[in-house]
Amino acid sequence: MVDNAALVREKLDQAVAILAEQGVDVWLTFVRETSLAPDPSLDLILGMDMVWQSAFIVTRRGERIAIVGKHDKENVEATGGYTRIVPYVQGISESLRGVLAELDPANVALNYSLNDVAADGLGHGLMLLLRQHLEGTGLPDRFTSAESVIGSLRGRKSPIEIQRIRQAVTTTEAIFSLVGDSVRAGLSETDIARYVHQQIDAANLGTAWDRDYCPTVSAGPESPVGHAGPLPDVHVGPGMLLHMDFGVKQDGFCADLQRTWYVLGEGEDAPPAVVVAAFDAARAALQAGFDAMRPGVQGWLIDAAARSALVEAGYPEYQHAFGHHVGRVAHDGATVLGPRWERYGDTPYGVLEENNVFAIELGVEVEGYGYIGLEENVRVTAGGAEWLSDPQTELWTLRG
Amino acid sequence: MVDNAALVREKLDQAVAILAEQGVDVWLTFVRETSLAPDPSLDLILGMDMVWQSAFIVTRRGERIAIVGKHDKENVEATGGYTRIVPYVQGISESLRGVLAELDPANVALNYSLNDVAADGLGHGLMLLLRQHLEGTGLPDRFTSAESVIGSLRGRKSPIEIQRIRQAVTTTEAIFSLVGDSVRAGLSETDIARYVHQQIDAANLGTAWDRDYCPTVSAGPESPVGHAGPLPDVHVGPGMLLHMDFGVKQDGFCADLQRTWYVLGEGEDAPPAVVVAAFDAARAALQAGFDAMRPGVQGWLIDAAARSALVEAGYPEYQHAFGHHVGRVAHDGATVLGPRWERYGDTPYGVLEENNVFAIELGVEVEGYGYIGLEENVRVTAGGAEWLSDPQTELWTLRG
Repeated sequence: MVDNAALVREKLDQAVAILAEQGVDVWLTFVRETSLAPDPSLDLILGMDMVWQSAFIVTRRGERIAIVGKHDKENVEATGGYTRIVPYVQGISESLRGVLAELDPANVALNYSLNDVAADGLGHGLMLLLRQHLEGTGLPDRFTSAESVIGSLRGRKSPIEIQRIRQAVTTTEAIFSLVGDSVRAGLSETDIARYVHQQIDAANLGTAWDRDYCPTVSAGPESPVGHAGPLPDVHVGPGMLLHMDFGVKQDGFCADLQRTWYVLGEGEDAPPAVVVAAFDAARAALQAGFDAMRPGVQGWLIDAAARSALVEAGYPEYQHAFGHHVGRVAHDGATVLGPRWERYGDTPYGVLEENNVFAIELGVEVEGYGYIGLEENVRVTAGGAEWLSDPQTELWTLRG
Repeated sequence: MVDNAALVREKLDQAVAILAEQGVDVWLTFVRETSLAPDPSLDLILGMDMVWQSAFIVTRRGERIAIVGKHDKENVEATGGYTRIVPYVQGISESLRGVLAELDPANVALNYSLNDVAADGLGHGLMLLLRQHLEGTGLPDRFTSAESVIGSLRGRKSPIEIQRIRQAVTTTEAIFSLVGDSVRAGLSETDIARYVHQQIDAANLGTAWDRDYCPTVSAGPESPVGHAGPLPDVHVGPGMLLHMDFGVKQDGFCADLQRTWYVLGEGEDAPPAVVVAAFDAARAALQAGFDAMRPGVQGWLIDAAARSALVEAGYPEYQHAFGHHVGRVAHDGATVLGPRWERYGDTPYGVLEENNVFAIELGVEVEGYGYIGLEENVRVTAGGAEWLSDPQTELWTLRG
């Protein structure tokens, strides 16, 4: 059994420090029926579901106050993270108004964000309801977005979080290795996905994203790349590339890696030169991105370093971001190491912070052979970055 | 493998009919990164996660249009539910403005709701972003809440949905029966929960709510009732009540049942009269609520029928709602069969519709013995209601 209470206390301590750093008086997480409508921030500061309307208040002075339905009191107490728990029976509004009046904050940061989905846990209807609860108090005028609070809290991985991500990476690498040992020509993409699912089920693990697309498997030049699920009628054969994008979720934390094999044809000892050249260009571009990583740098600059390296080597731009946070989910919100395209909003302008953990990735299509995709997980250190995964530095080969 | 595409098509057909019925031109579900920020409505009309910003548009004329990142095109196509799929690469706003300009709807229903969490899938920040995308089009002035569309769509269970809930109920009942056969004095609440988890893991099932509290197990008068997790230091012993609240999630659908046993002491052949009387009063109150159920009746009236029966029998009011929808989650949103208390908002004023499926529940604390809780799952029929579970009509006994 994993001790999530210790992790919750670790994150609450971090939150108080971040509020002080950012000049935020009160951070209010307001939720209801979270099994149906989860707020990603609740995982950080509570680690369980709430049924009734509940408010979790952290202040820069260090108070951690939970206003919850009376049935939930014991469970919240058990985390050991809250300095005060206010239970209610019929409705939350009176307690909520009372506690906030006592605190009288100059600003109240709420979980909404145009840019960062991990900071956008407050439903629009729930926001309207909160305004209704606090009508006449003047507090709604002091609402502000908790985007930067949550971005830092979620992004700065704590010691327990880093340890768990390392564990998920190691487990994922072991499964990639088993796949390399057991795949042979004739197997379909779905056969390979089924084999991976057998491994994770036997070990009681989850997948880092939707199981139907985790792993994604692409065999050869005809298979659609990207989020498409594995196909039953696409088979591994000699002279093709085999690509897999996969990660486990273990003790609540994810890995997200890609590996690529070449299936040797009869009489072939090594992949064709055109394939090796593409791999080497992809690998060098990934390394260029990695080399640019250090605290204080904006996300889009990291993407640009990798993207320009690939383009300068004569290959087309990848149509996605170079990197994303990885943690409780595979795409863990906040800063994206991506180009300044509309769909990334402001997220490429965020800066890297120490102990951020990113998945960095890119790929190249090789005509007639298939897709080469590389993805590694890395931690931002005080002066740069370190690999959490053992990077793939050459194309792996299988016998057809 | 379960065919979710057929279920998605079934729900999309229902959605078109509901839009026509309610005079809604366009229902727009706008999402991003749904593995982190799920919209409960997306399960109904798509059944998979989206990474990039995506729009799913259903019109009263029957169009079903998906505007999605190009990587997701094939997966959305595979559902067979959409009449038109518009893929994009850099940003969604141009396609979204184009499609909505073509449709020129008088109203656009969006997924926000003060009352129904299942209809509140649109984050507040995502709402601000949508307004930004549609700036200058006049469309934001035509935004309205999709609460009643989603309430009916989610609440009116389709044939596949009803079949799957029946299956989850049957499986849950079988596990309750195994628990009754194997529990003996001396076991702790956590021992019993562990035994239940072994059964569901062996059958590759999920829990209907957070696994740490599913089942909840309460043994005897000292155990806190409600959402508290099972305790390692509370043991089953003679002369006490043993209560369990539990449901499996199977093929995406839940059951939610409660059962109560009495542990016979040495020389005891039957539970004490005071315990039997409490059980009978609880059972009669549950039946009174069931008897009041039929299409067109408001939720709070069902609660009042059960609540007043219990109070008239001389027992205290239960401190929760009598009933809630059950389906993809244990608390499946929309109309609540509950008292008109603040925390239920407007949900007790919703009316029952044919093919709604509810969990109905209530309980009585018996001083010195523990908690009696009853919960059954029922379907609303054209003229009343039918039991989906086999109701517990007498207290079950265990040998201490």
